[in-house]
Amino acid sequence: MDDTPAATEGAAAAPQFRRPYAPDHDVLLQIKNPHRPGRLGLLLTVIGEVGGLVSEITTRFVGRDAMLRDLTVSVYDEEHLEELLRAIPGRTEAQVLGVKDLVFERHLGGKIHCGRTKELAGLEDLRLVYTPGVARVCRAIRDEPALARRYTTAGRTVGIFTNGTRVLGLGDIGALASMPVMEGKAVLYDQFAGLSAVPVLVDERDPAAFVETVMRVAPTFAGIHLEDIRTPDCFEIEDALIARLDKPVMHDDQHGTATVLLAAVLSALRETGRGLAPADWRKAARGLTCAQIGLGAAGLAIARLLIEYGFRVLGVDPSPDARARLESHGGTIADLEDAIAAADVLIATTGVVGLIRPESIRTGQIVLALSNPVPEIRPSEAIAAGAAFAADGQSVNNALAFPGLFRAAIDTGAPAITGPMKTAAAEAISVLADPGELVPSPFHPEVHQQVVAAAAGAAV
Amino acid sequence: MDDTPAATEGAAAAPQFRRPYAPDHDVLLQIKNPHRPGRLGLLLTVIGEVGGLVSEITTRFVGRDAMLRDLTVSVYDEEHLEELLRAIPGRTEAQVLGVKDLVFERHLGGKIHCGRTKELAGLEDLRLVYTPGVARVCRAIRDEPALARRYTTAGRTVGIFTNGTRVLGLGDIGALASMPVMEGKAVLYDQFAGLSAVPVLVDERDPAAFVETVMRVAPTFAGIHLEDIRTPDCFEIEDALIARLDKPVMHDDQHGTATVLLAAVLSALRETGRGLAPADWRKAARGLTCAQIGLGAAGLAIARLLIEYGFRVLGVDPSPDARARLESHGGTIADLEDAIAAADVLIATTGVVGLIRPESIRTGQIVLALSNPVPEIRPSEAIAAGAAFAADGQSVNNALAFPGLFRAAIDTGAPAITGPMKTAAAEAISVLADPGELVPSPFHPEVHQQVVAAAAGAAV
Repeated sequence: MDDTPAATEGAAAAPQFRRPYAPDHDVLLQIKNPHRPGRLGLLLTVIGEVGGLVSEITTRFVGRDAMLRDLTVSVYDEEHLEELLRAIPGRTEAQVLGVKDLVFERHLGGKIHCGRTKELAGLEDLRLVYTPGVARVCRAIRDEPALARRYTTAGRTVGIFTNGTRVLGLGDIGALASMPVMEGKAVLYDQFAGLSAVPVLVDERDPAAFVETVMRVAPTFAGIHLEDIRTPDCFEIEDALIARLDKPVMHDDQHGTATVLLAAVLSALRETGRGLAPADWRKAARGLTCAQIGLGAAGLAIARLLIEYGFRVLGVDPSPDARARLESHGGTIADLEDAIAAADVLIATTGVVGLIRPESIRTGQIVLALSNPVPEIRPSEAIAAGAAFAADGQSVNNALAFPGLFRAAIDTGAPAITGPMKTAAAEAISVLADPGELVPSPFHPEVHQQVVAAAAGAAV
Repeated sequence: MDDTPAATEGAAAAPQFRRPYAPDHDVLLQIKNPHRPGRLGLLLTVIGEVGGLVSEITTRFVGRDAMLRDLTVSVYDEEHLEELLRAIPGRTEAQVLGVKDLVFERHLGGKIHCGRTKELAGLEDLRLVYTPGVARVCRAIRDEPALARRYTTAGRTVGIFTNGTRVLGLGDIGALASMPVMEGKAVLYDQFAGLSAVPVLVDERDPAAFVETVMRVAPTFAGIHLEDIRTPDCFEIEDALIARLDKPVMHDDQHGTATVLLAAVLSALRETGRGLAPADWRKAARGLTCAQIGLGAAGLAIARLLIEYGFRVLGVDPSPDARARLESHGGTIADLEDAIAAADVLIATTGVVGLIRPESIRTGQIVLALSNPVPEIRPSEAIAAGAAFAADGQSVNNALAFPGLFRAAIDTGAPAITGPMKTAAAEAISVLADPGELVPSPFHPEVHQQVVAAAAGAAV
């Protein structure tokens, strides 16, 4: 291989976009490359040609002849990574000194820890937090159980319960394998809402036994977050726990998603001139029809919250049970073509790629096709077909909703997370979206406190 | 009131030692006192005469005429505190500006938090700990469940389970009221062994249902710590969970206590010249008889561990069930007087004040009368009656054992906490006791790592 960068030659090979979505397997490549002009460009070009998506580049060492750099690259899978690891030494002068799987590195030892809020300095401290001091606090709670809210973490800890029967994108993988998702939720509760959150893996598929288990350990927690439970069990479990517990219970796959989706719909109203300010949204909603295509856990909850907000909702689903559930919550069943034709706002949560044909799109429609990683219709196709606004599910992150909703309920002592709390949270989220965007980033510096304030206001 | 300190006058009133043990209700008094010689002495004298025990004194402000100081004072109860608060302004020139209950202050908001181990800096981090990255870790665990140990907190978290049916010194106060104790245990796991620990309050008194509940949520945890469960349910529950789970299960009130008590007995052998070094202890044990008076949860476990170590054990208890349990574990039943007469080492865990009469004590005996706050015989009485060594339960803190035992089991992947692990831990604890002491402080800089090393060595 001579000194001439091979970029031109490489560019002849067609980029391998093997799948209709972005690669999501993040690796860190430790690279040694000659310290000469054009060598980094060649390396990045070759990575790009193989279909790797480069994000961070960190220089670790600058030598006379060589550079050491860490490159974060997203690939599709192990096979794709191996292809990349063959291409780099084959078509550049770079050497790959090491490969780190960033996701697994980050998961080593788990992502959460339950421990002390204050250091114990010595025996004096031990007298306060353990025996003998602790006995007086126990007695006080025995005599007045409400004091547990003030003097224990049972007053500010969310239990995140799952049996792993429907983990997003993975299906029924069981409780243990779903732990990384539950820890992720706990990380978000902590970082975004300052709440303590504890995953509880329930190795039990029967809904009644699941409910019984949660009931037995419920005194430990201020709120019960249900996660990744299959349909229709999730409805039965949530209904039973809401009925039996006087503390907030929420199935996030339903109501967290619905809250963020309502925020997205409100932003779309603003983007299309149908409701410019929060004061106009309720009125606009009462004149508009939403079609909710797909009435699974998320779809049904979205439909329910849209109805709560004042929209007319047409629901589409092949399952008679799902249709009956929507009707029991005040929605109307329609067939797919009629619903699309009648809808001012078209929302799809079916998982069926290409379900919505461009020729069905009505001029001026708002189209939110949410299935991941590939939507029911691409936003660009919907816009080309006449939609006034279109988006897919990439930016609709329910981390925007659940931390603040639970924090608000816990702070106010609300016995449930109500419809008005969710709609108030949705409005607060939408208000902070940048122009052209449906929702703000979950790292927006104000969004979580605004959600807490809005939902707390609606709770009292 | 003139300027002369009233100490002499006050000293005439007999100090009110109303109970035969030290006061344990710690309050912080914010005091304003004239800045003149003798005024602090007067104040402290008056507090002492009322029976208050002063520990920390912190000067907050030094003025021309007055001093502001915080005094930490132990009293017996609220009534005793009120008496103190009347005496100070009545008999000194000091004013009490404020009273803080240090225990309740320290418990505000709870003592533990479950949250992230690393800050999320932004969306890149979210991709690693949440979607999409998390899915790969979930799939890896689905395909190879043992990976959960490496990549989730299920591999290093202890679940602390209780139903609150026998909280030490308080009895059956229920699960919720026992939370401050469970949080205290979690604090100790974190501080002393670096383990994540999560209290789980189980609102269920039936042992079979308790076991079923623990079994259902057991995938969440690397180890199961049972706490404050009544006798005999604690035996049934622990046996069932040990049989059904391939991870460490330990009822701390039994085996944590027994481990520390064995350490205390070994220290007493050293103090009385019966076994100077660890190498001599086993041999000494085989020639000695221990009497275990009281075969409740702690007493039975102590007897079992002493038998495991090689001692001959005579047990005393009025309950036929308790006696049968001891016999099933290789102990011999005796009546109280015979057991005391035969014992080289006399251990009592009965809760019965004054059960052991000084005239029963045999010359040269080791006497460990452990009931709190008042023992079966005072150490000074036992020594006066001829005992070679005597102690009460004040210094026997099971915080010395359980953090290291669980850490060792988890680190080595041991499926149980075995007898050899407990005896190895006991030896490691005893070795670090100062001369004249039974055990080291739980804040000894090496004790927990030595317990981990010893128990881990015995596990593999």
